[in-house]
Amino acid sequence: MKTYNDCIPCLVRQALGAARFVTEDEKIQETVLKRCLAAMAVMDMDQSPPIMARLIQRIIYEVTGNEDPYKKVKKKFNAFCLDLIGELRAMVESSKFPLETAVRLSIAGNIIDFGAISTLDQKTVFATVDHAMENTVKGDMEALVERLVSADSILWIADNAGEIVFDRLVLEKINRDRVIFVVRGGPALNDATLEDAAETGLTELVTTIDSGVAIPGTVLEECSTVFLDAFNRADLIIAKGQGNYETLPHDDDRIVFLFKAKCQVVAGSAGVNLNDMVVYRGGI
Amino acid sequence: MKTYNDCIPCLVRQALGAARFVTEDEKIQETVLKRCLAAMAVMDMDQSPPIMARLIQRIIYEVTGNEDPYKKVKKKFNAFCLDLIGELRAMVESSKFPLETAVRLSIAGNIIDFGAISTLDQKTVFATVDHAMENTVKGDMEALVERLVSADSILWIADNAGEIVFDRLVLEKINRDRVIFVVRGGPALNDATLEDAAETGLTELVTTIDSGVAIPGTVLEECSTVFLDAFNRADLIIAKGQGNYETLPHDDDRIVFLFKAKCQVVAGSAGVNLNDMVVYRGGI
Repeated sequence: MKTYNDCIPCLVRQALGAARFVTEDEKIQETVLKRCLAAMAVMDMDQSPPIMARLIQRIIYEVTGNEDPYKKVKKKFNAFCLDLIGELRAMVESSKFPLETAVRLSIAGNIIDFGAISTLDQKTVFATVDHAMENTVKGDMEALVERLVSADSILWIADNAGEIVFDRLVLEKINRDRVIFVVRGGPALNDATLEDAAETGLTELVTTIDSGVAIPGTVLEECSTVFLDAFNRADLIIAKGQGNYETLPHDDDRIVFLFKAKCQVVAGSAGVNLNDMVVYRGGI
Repeated sequence: MKTYNDCIPCLVRQALGAARFVTEDEKIQETVLKRCLAAMAVMDMDQSPPIMARLIQRIIYEVTGNEDPYKKVKKKFNAFCLDLIGELRAMVESSKFPLETAVRLSIAGNIIDFGAISTLDQKTVFATVDHAMENTVKGDMEALVERLVSADSILWIADNAGEIVFDRLVLEKINRDRVIFVVRGGPALNDATLEDAAETGLTELVTTIDSGVAIPGTVLEECSTVFLDAFNRADLIIAKGQGNYETLPHDDDRIVFLFKAKCQVVAGSAGVNLNDMVVYRGGI
């Protein structure tokens, strides 16, 4: 997906939000912000927004020396979601359609996105879980559930720290021998890395690799051979979150994008409304 | 008031909103946006936000040849508010404290601000009027009402088109021989100019001048001699809206700022909450 004009104010907000995670010094925040503005003034809009998100993070590193602005918030939401998992599991187990409920909750977990939202509290996560249990998902949930059960090889490309605990609920309900779980190759917004996967027990539950690249999305041209081998072999690819939707091709019917539509640009592109839970199958 | 880091994403949004009033062509919008980003990357943050708002409008003029992006929306809200004035007058007349009610409504009218809000509909104006009748105003309304009655010379520095119809309600309740009404010296966001004052009957009701400068605020160093004479002579200066609050000095106790707090930066500076109606007296 290209970068739309509407992405620009949002990326500027993201840059300020990231700078604030690193320092309270308003002059340093201003320096970060102005360097990001200068970079955006000449950006190639045919590139996807996560490419600019990476550049923002590089600028923050150059200005402040901090290469992982979201480190604390990732740890916080990993811990918060781990505290919650018993309750979430009970919701799955008491459900008439446990796997579908697990998928719903996994989509709800996608709200933990500090790229789309600068400040997020735990109350919003609870409200999103409630919303997920009460509202319709846009897309073919039934077909997805069937493929999750029947696919020979599943690649699960995760999105955010914290959210991966919600993904666990799905992985616990399917045969995991067929699953490879993918996290980012390095710090990128609050996206999950191998450290987060280990911290939340995912690495013990399922084969976990990283994409080989520190971008809040999946830019295939930059991914590692290990990742690309797994990608090419999979017959079902679950791509969580807006960043994966913005970077992966939409014409590959092995890919199912699962996300909360948190911005108008992505909602418009996917033909859904803001805040909808989305199951978007590629190739249609 | 200086420009804060939080103003930057907002000014970027404002630039895109203004470009969209001029053209539907996304490439031209992109050009405007990128030139604004480049300008903001080197901006002097000690200047007030309206200075950058003026630069945005200059860039739009340079790129598109349009010097008044908000022309249509100004006419639309002038007409809408004129349609409403009978109803608003009835609210004033049936009130126990007619002048106070008129001031409240004048503050409510400050919601018609396309600098702070990119898209505003008439429903929001109605809701703001309802809110104004039901909620407390922050600041000393009683002292203001007394000064409006007793001041020898009042300078009323207006803000937006449409909103000036709400200001009329106050002017209709006081001795207008003492009042000079001020609009902007040229197109600046959706701020009222002489054209709008004429269109809404203000020029017939009260002596009306312009500030001599096309900025969405009042930058004294740039104002005309005619304006400055009136400014220096006045013993009560009513300054409507955030733009005047951001540009005029806060230590002059002749000035009373009346506005709806529509952004966190201004709300924080004035010690009020977002969406509050504010009577802020200078010099305190």
